[in-house]
Amino acid sequence: MAMTKYWSPVIQCLDPYVPGEQPQDQKYIKLNTNESPFPPSEFVQQAIRECVSDTLRLYPDPEARELKETIAAYYGVEKAQVFVGNGSDEVLAFSFIAFYKNGQKIAFPDITYNFYRVYCSLFDIEYQCPALTDHYAIDINDYPSGLGGIIFPNPNAPTGIFMSLAEIETLLSRHPDIVVIVDEAYVDFGGESCISLISQYPNLLVIQTLSKSRSLAGLRVGFAVGDENLIQGLNCVKNSFNSYPLDHLAIRGAIAAFQDQPYFEICCAEIIRNRDWLTAELQSRSYYVLPSTSNFLLAKHPVVDGGTLYAQLKNKGVLVRYFDSVRIKDFVRITIGTISEMQQLVETLDCL
Amino acid sequence: MAMTKYWSPVIQCLDPYVPGEQPQDQKYIKLNTNESPFPPSEFVQQAIRECVSDTLRLYPDPEARELKETIAAYYGVEKAQVFVGNGSDEVLAFSFIAFYKNGQKIAFPDITYNFYRVYCSLFDIEYQCPALTDHYAIDINDYPSGLGGIIFPNPNAPTGIFMSLAEIETLLSRHPDIVVIVDEAYVDFGGESCISLISQYPNLLVIQTLSKSRSLAGLRVGFAVGDENLIQGLNCVKNSFNSYPLDHLAIRGAIAAFQDQPYFEICCAEIIRNRDWLTAELQSRSYYVLPSTSNFLLAKHPVVDGGTLYAQLKNKGVLVRYFDSVRIKDFVRITIGTISEMQQLVETLDCL
Repeated sequence: MAMTKYWSPVIQCLDPYVPGEQPQDQKYIKLNTNESPFPPSEFVQQAIRECVSDTLRLYPDPEARELKETIAAYYGVEKAQVFVGNGSDEVLAFSFIAFYKNGQKIAFPDITYNFYRVYCSLFDIEYQCPALTDHYAIDINDYPSGLGGIIFPNPNAPTGIFMSLAEIETLLSRHPDIVVIVDEAYVDFGGESCISLISQYPNLLVIQTLSKSRSLAGLRVGFAVGDENLIQGLNCVKNSFNSYPLDHLAIRGAIAAFQDQPYFEICCAEIIRNRDWLTAELQSRSYYVLPSTSNFLLAKHPVVDGGTLYAQLKNKGVLVRYFDSVRIKDFVRITIGTISEMQQLVETLDCL
Repeated sequence: MAMTKYWSPVIQCLDPYVPGEQPQDQKYIKLNTNESPFPPSEFVQQAIRECVSDTLRLYPDPEARELKETIAAYYGVEKAQVFVGNGSDEVLAFSFIAFYKNGQKIAFPDITYNFYRVYCSLFDIEYQCPALTDHYAIDINDYPSGLGGIIFPNPNAPTGIFMSLAEIETLLSRHPDIVVIVDEAYVDFGGESCISLISQYPNLLVIQTLSKSRSLAGLRVGFAVGDENLIQGLNCVKNSFNSYPLDHLAIRGAIAAFQDQPYFEICCAEIIRNRDWLTAELQSRSYYVLPSTSNFLLAKHPVVDGGTLYAQLKNKGVLVRYFDSVRIKDFVRITIGTISEMQQLVETLDCL
């Protein structure tokens, strides 16, 4: 990429996050970016359509009060313990500014969501990356005292492995002076949210998204739940960055998504069922499959490396994700789709 | 606001931007945040409604190619010269990171969009504020060499005063080594865009919004046009912050907004007509009114100060904006609405 005198030093050395491909045609079975295979609830779609009106000429509520109230009621917390943003990526970015620009190194696993490294570069935050165990789990004993912060997804991505709330409590108790962020993007597929812990741990910030379990990746809504003081910190950053990160339609659609609980439960249950089916199918073909509590599997072919398998599948019309990183280069990450998509994937694998 | 050990030093001393009130009921004549009094075009509303579909389960195009192509075609530039973001505030924030974190002081007028100061605090950028002239105009001779950047709205806000393209060219020529950002949020109400200058000046970045002249404040879409190298810098920041700042519906609605040129022209012409009418009415009542090329007037009552007039009007159901800042504390900023709203405002003023 060309650089010039006009670029500030910070961006001269940025290595931006590269999201999974979003092909603009429909010719792939798309199992590469952990979207839901199910459409947003009809109730949500109707709510958004009805919100398209003259009101779009007006700025949205800068506080998104109604959405915060809905999320607060859903999780049994106070509105003042909820923050909302333009996708969980924005919430994460604000969190790094609010809590991690403190001159100390933060820590996150060596294998995890790649965007954490990028935020550190963008905001000039040092970090260290304790290695996952040989079984790809986070060992909380690898996180020493003296850190500036700790962040990890739970379940972790792209491993799909879930950490128990008991372990999270131990971590929170050991590090009372720093903010521990638990990124629960994938928690609804069999995991357990640690939102229940926020009243006991003022250093816990939980971040979630509507992009996965609520089928709204295209609407861009994420949120954080935590002690009121942490939420005030996030508001302070948000109000210094963009007064209105959520538009009218995103606010309305997100509210509706929390109001259709039966559909949400059906979708999550179906993903879990399809995940179990695919896991068994892959294992019966001698794949090594990490035990996932998410809507994806990290799986290793007995012979073929990840990059090759990714390319072979793409060639046959199936998009999965491959990470060019030493410890997981033999794996591909497969998003759990409909049962029909899972069957087509297995058939495609059998024909390679 | 409470602060704690969890907050990073940068946010301990932030003084966030305070947007104009967005009352969640309909009881005011709302002339305080420079929204359009006209609904978005029916064509735009229809396009958004049709976009509400299963596709919302998928991430949007991270590059928003189709929207960039639409804007590029509209202004006769290349797609690679266009950047889009979640409202022009996000585009501004990214620009400060990309071009102004260079260790030198940037400059903007003493009376201008208050968010510029806030970005400087958030991103730790020093600044100086050359004073507007006694007639509230920007004097380009007040911007010395050695700056790290220059930014101003054109027309300026909240004065509404427009700077000629000839003056902007002089400024660009004098400061070839720094980025000059011209924030054209209000340019469509009788001003002239300097997008026509980008091919000659690689240091010019023009930022616009769909929130004012295109009646879409509630959809959150802004954009920048400039030399490809500047746009690459913005992409670098955006891709290190949020892969998908624009949702499907915002992309679709914004595209449609550029496709309904007749409606856009009718709305802008009506605003200009109503602005001229209100200017004359206020002047006939001995108000001092700055010559505005925007969709608002900065006006001073012959006797009553701005804070008092704001409060009196609010009490009568009319919201305007007041700035508690030494040089303009005697003024109120009045958004231009429909002719009926302007008539009601004048009647209300006459009854105070």
